[in-house]
Amino acid sequence: MRDTSTILTPPLPGIPRTRRLLVAVSGGIDSTSLLHALIQQGYRKLTLLHLNHSLRGRAATADATFVKSLARRLNLPIISAKVDVPALARKEKLSIETAARRARYTFFAQAARQTRCRTLLLAHNADDQAETFLFNLLRGGGTNLGGMRPRTVREIDGIRLEILRPWLNVWRTEIQAYATREKIRYREDATNASPEHTRNRIRTRIIPYLSKQLDRDIRPALWRAAEILAAQQDWLDDSLTLTTSELPVPALRALPVALQRHTLHAWLRRHRIPQISFDLIELIRTLLPSGAKVSKVNLPTATFARRREGLLFIDGTVRNRRIKRKACKK
Amino acid sequence: MRDTSTILTPPLPGIPRTRRLLVAVSGGIDSTSLLHALIQQGYRKLTLLHLNHSLRGRAATADATFVKSLARRLNLPIISAKVDVPALARKEKLSIETAARRARYTFFAQAARQTRCRTLLLAHNADDQAETFLFNLLRGGGTNLGGMRPRTVREIDGIRLEILRPWLNVWRTEIQAYATREKIRYREDATNASPEHTRNRIRTRIIPYLSKQLDRDIRPALWRAAEILAAQQDWLDDSLTLTTSELPVPALRALPVALQRHTLHAWLRRHRIPQISFDLIELIRTLLPSGAKVSKVNLPTATFARRREGLLFIDGTVRNRRIKRKACKK
Repeated sequence: MRDTSTILTPPLPGIPRTRRLLVAVSGGIDSTSLLHALIQQGYRKLTLLHLNHSLRGRAATADATFVKSLARRLNLPIISAKVDVPALARKEKLSIETAARRARYTFFAQAARQTRCRTLLLAHNADDQAETFLFNLLRGGGTNLGGMRPRTVREIDGIRLEILRPWLNVWRTEIQAYATREKIRYREDATNASPEHTRNRIRTRIIPYLSKQLDRDIRPALWRAAEILAAQQDWLDDSLTLTTSELPVPALRALPVALQRHTLHAWLRRHRIPQISFDLIELIRTLLPSGAKVSKVNLPTATFARRREGLLFIDGTVRNRRIKRKACKK
Repeated sequence: MRDTSTILTPPLPGIPRTRRLLVAVSGGIDSTSLLHALIQQGYRKLTLLHLNHSLRGRAATADATFVKSLARRLNLPIISAKVDVPALARKEKLSIETAARRARYTFFAQAARQTRCRTLLLAHNADDQAETFLFNLLRGGGTNLGGMRPRTVREIDGIRLEILRPWLNVWRTEIQAYATREKIRYREDATNASPEHTRNRIRTRIIPYLSKQLDRDIRPALWRAAEILAAQQDWLDDSLTLTTSELPVPALRALPVALQRHTLHAWLRRHRIPQISFDLIELIRTLLPSGAKVSKVNLPTATFARRREGLLFIDGTVRNRRIKRKACKK
């Protein structure tokens, strides 16, 4: 294990200690320790953000009480809220995880507006990065393999939020050692211990099983892949040149395959097409060859991708109807 | 399952039926079925290649006998050879798998020279692609995540060999259905059934376990990732501009991170540095910032990467000494 004193407490690169910062604090070991480390580093203008997702009953209420009392003890402002995530998931026909993420980011944006502060710190660690990568690889449509970034800028509800994850390269065991050494008090996350959710199963069962089968700790390999693919994704983003509503087919055809795919992915997103999958993108790519016999591809929500007179465009109305994701094509 | 009759017997794109082709035939279901399909498609000028790796004793000898008799029955020429792979592995200090691969490609190159035929068909299927991806992800240094290509050109011992894998998108179950329907006789591969090797463990244990845990067949997701990352890798290859023996630091620094990494990887390979890992590449990248305090990084085999007067170069002699790969840094 590395010397955690130097890993956990470097100043945030490029962020002066006088900057006002939002810190998401669940009350768990990661976010409570990050808050502690930030204070150690001399950051003082911190506002704690805590969202009760209504997912864990009394434990969640106790978490909220804990974080509020922590803020009081540290004499720091706190913004807390409660959202009924299960109800949101039902209403919007989302998975619990997606609904929770959406509720969280809406809350962050509101807090950013309220405080006029545009920088948010999240305590995701290297284990989270490895686990998320494996989760996206095994569950995803293959279009989102790059890992979380140490710094991203995200536009949410008209708010431009800078999101920093200073602990993406710090392992959970290192945070645990730090928390023990610093005698940090935190709340055990009840959902972490339960193997119900896929995310927790990846953490508690799948990664230990794979490490045993391969006879090595596989987390660094997953972490590296997430990091490498994040950089490739950034490069793809920066190389997007075709960003119009209709795409010129000859120009698209001339691109490298990787960039064709990325261009089509961004194009479908611009048109708010849901459930963008690798298979769908490959289907649209069959419209590109100059002698292509197909000129129309069905999209979800009763729309079509059409090629006509050298242009690729979306035909039909995008209705806000949700279609259950088709079983993975074998 | 898809209609295998159209999947397994399309003509090879761009390859006229009169072209002379080399076909690697182990005697197992995949290669024997591919041979059958090629003949069905009207390809006649086929030469069978069979290598006995000396890995499975009497079973291997029986495989060789089977393939020779198959060639006789089909009235096709065959080139077969026997290599002592365990001895090669010991002598060259390679893993059995690496030694087997090296022996195989040397054999292919010799056969290509002997027959003056430069196109080789391999029967890798979609399951192989998914398994190889997971193997490279969990075992590799993070620098080789792209999957096998349906077409590659490889220079081996001065021979430029075009390698085609027409069945990379055909699943093992589809080949099995085809073999049953066509009453194809083949040899069971004894190593496939044994969970000793990591590769076989991935096939027989790890992929079934992950599919059960995730409650879906995970192979299509792995296959897609291999395909997507292969295209990104090709794009990186085509975007390499700095290919000199010494690298100009300002130009390297100006590249996107993904391309910096790929440029350094290609540079280390040109200099025949062994065990190129992600961690090593990241270490060399610390030499790039204009204010970098470090100007030298140790490489394996007692050489150094140095920065001096705006250039990155390799210092010291590359000795042909092999160093055991260090345990994965945690």
